[in-house]
Amino acid sequence: MAPKVLLMGELFWAGPDAEELLGGIAELVPMESQSREEFFQDCAPGGRYSDIVGIYHEHLSDKIGAGYDSVGVKAAKARGIGVSNTPGAVDKATAITAVFLLVATMRRFSWCEANLRAGGFNPPGVEESARDLSGKTVGILGMGGIGLKMANYIRPFGCNLLYHNRRPNSLAPPDVKYVSELYEFLGQLDVLMVSIPLSEKTRGFVGVKEIRTMKKGSIIVNTARGPVIDEEAMIKALQDGHLGSVGLDVFTKEPEVDQRLKDMKHITLLPHVGTENQEARRKMERTALVNLKEFLTTGTGPNLVPECQ
Amino acid sequence: MAPKVLLMGELFWAGPDAEELLGGIAELVPMESQSREEFFQDCAPGGRYSDIVGIYHEHLSDKIGAGYDSVGVKAAKARGIGVSNTPGAVDKATAITAVFLLVATMRRFSWCEANLRAGGFNPPGVEESARDLSGKTVGILGMGGIGLKMANYIRPFGCNLLYHNRRPNSLAPPDVKYVSELYEFLGQLDVLMVSIPLSEKTRGFVGVKEIRTMKKGSIIVNTARGPVIDEEAMIKALQDGHLGSVGLDVFTKEPEVDQRLKDMKHITLLPHVGTENQEARRKMERTALVNLKEFLTTGTGPNLVPECQ
Repeated sequence: MAPKVLLMGELFWAGPDAEELLGGIAELVPMESQSREEFFQDCAPGGRYSDIVGIYHEHLSDKIGAGYDSVGVKAAKARGIGVSNTPGAVDKATAITAVFLLVATMRRFSWCEANLRAGGFNPPGVEESARDLSGKTVGILGMGGIGLKMANYIRPFGCNLLYHNRRPNSLAPPDVKYVSELYEFLGQLDVLMVSIPLSEKTRGFVGVKEIRTMKKGSIIVNTARGPVIDEEAMIKALQDGHLGSVGLDVFTKEPEVDQRLKDMKHITLLPHVGTENQEARRKMERTALVNLKEFLTTGTGPNLVPECQ
Repeated sequence: MAPKVLLMGELFWAGPDAEELLGGIAELVPMESQSREEFFQDCAPGGRYSDIVGIYHEHLSDKIGAGYDSVGVKAAKARGIGVSNTPGAVDKATAITAVFLLVATMRRFSWCEANLRAGGFNPPGVEESARDLSGKTVGILGMGGIGLKMANYIRPFGCNLLYHNRRPNSLAPPDVKYVSELYEFLGQLDVLMVSIPLSEKTRGFVGVKEIRTMKKGSIIVNTARGPVIDEEAMIKALQDGHLGSVGLDVFTKEPEVDQRLKDMKHITLLPHVGTENQEARRKMERTALVNLKEFLTTGTGPNLVPECQ
């Protein structure tokens, strides 16, 4: 009898891949517990999920993607359970979203479109406040798979690229300069691209001091997780003009978005859609299935999160 | 006495450049005629502009940029008057706008932002209709300075790039494939990027037949001039779903925008802001002054439009 894998949530796009990858290797069992309590009972010895050997967890657009901050990794590790994610699958989609937010904010395009759709055409003030990307200094905070893609996409625009990371990434192109000291890095930027994972260490990482170290009129783009920025400090800096604009795909209390942000014309706001497209999603789902297949057939597998390695 | 140059309109950003470039070479005379008739009188022998040797014409955001379709080039040529423009100055700004529209339309980002600002978060239907750029075939119609920049900016996204032009452009990168037959070109595309100048030959160039040759669900991005597309044919194709989306910076009757377009959520509309930023504009104004300086000091000059060469 094939070992059982619990499907928490659905395979929205990779249904056809499941048979190809796991056929004969695992039996996919749907999640039927109606509450957290019932689920714990179902997992206890004798319960209907007592013999599951793996869990596929559906991507939740407002909680998890390449990020896994919603999973209790420490508890899993303590029990010898491996946690893997799907890095890479959504790197491109997320990095392209970041590039979109970079251009949108530099050029004040959301403001332009809102004005046009409201019956006007070119809003007064845009020419004065919009900026060209050429020669601007763009800094990537966090140089992982997504940061590397961002660098590749931004380079042809003629920007100066810098990055800050705990340590240099040997995969970073030579013209993307590593700056080891955070405040020296921030002080040089016209635009800060935030691409660090959320953890207890990075919560509020970009706070008052970090924002105020940036130049007046500079821009922040965040496609990582809302809480890595101190949202209140960011809103204040937008209100007093220290920040010229922000481009956000993520927020502190998703799906709620602070009304003060929604009222600002000169910023760009997306509802956590960095990975939101059919093809990127299928790739994520398929990668999760491949992870399970490898675990079941070899006893180990790719894409274990760092805490489990 | 220095020869006179008439300033039609203002130097908004390159005022400081005027003294540096034309000081001692030309006297800048402001335009004071109150009507077209008065202007013709002023230019006639004995009139106040009878001795001007050059004209600086202000950039009009909704009429002229690198394009010069609002200037009577044939009439000028017949009188031995050279017409120059400022190509290159705005190539980057325009090409980056085109890339923005490419990403915005593929991913349905305008719809996402409008939904968020209206009080929602992620609109239903976006995941199904949004597409990843990887592996998509993007075709550039018109491979001039702006088209070349577009190709450089899009290449890292992992798209297949094609272009169609009257003849191959030797500056095009080898991996951007030239397709000489228009309909063979159009039939392969997921996205058509329009970058041809407006002339009597190109008015309505992208019409019913061209649009219907494209695949169902494909996208058109236009950062050239509104009238190079048959707007009515395009709107019908959007309404019946043949076109998946469009990203437009230009319209047939600017600054008016067809209400049917404004009512569509899944498209992106910008108010002709392809060149709209301070730095790109100063570069344009400065290039126009350099053109004048060269004409006045050498008798010929750079950037003559092709019809005058």
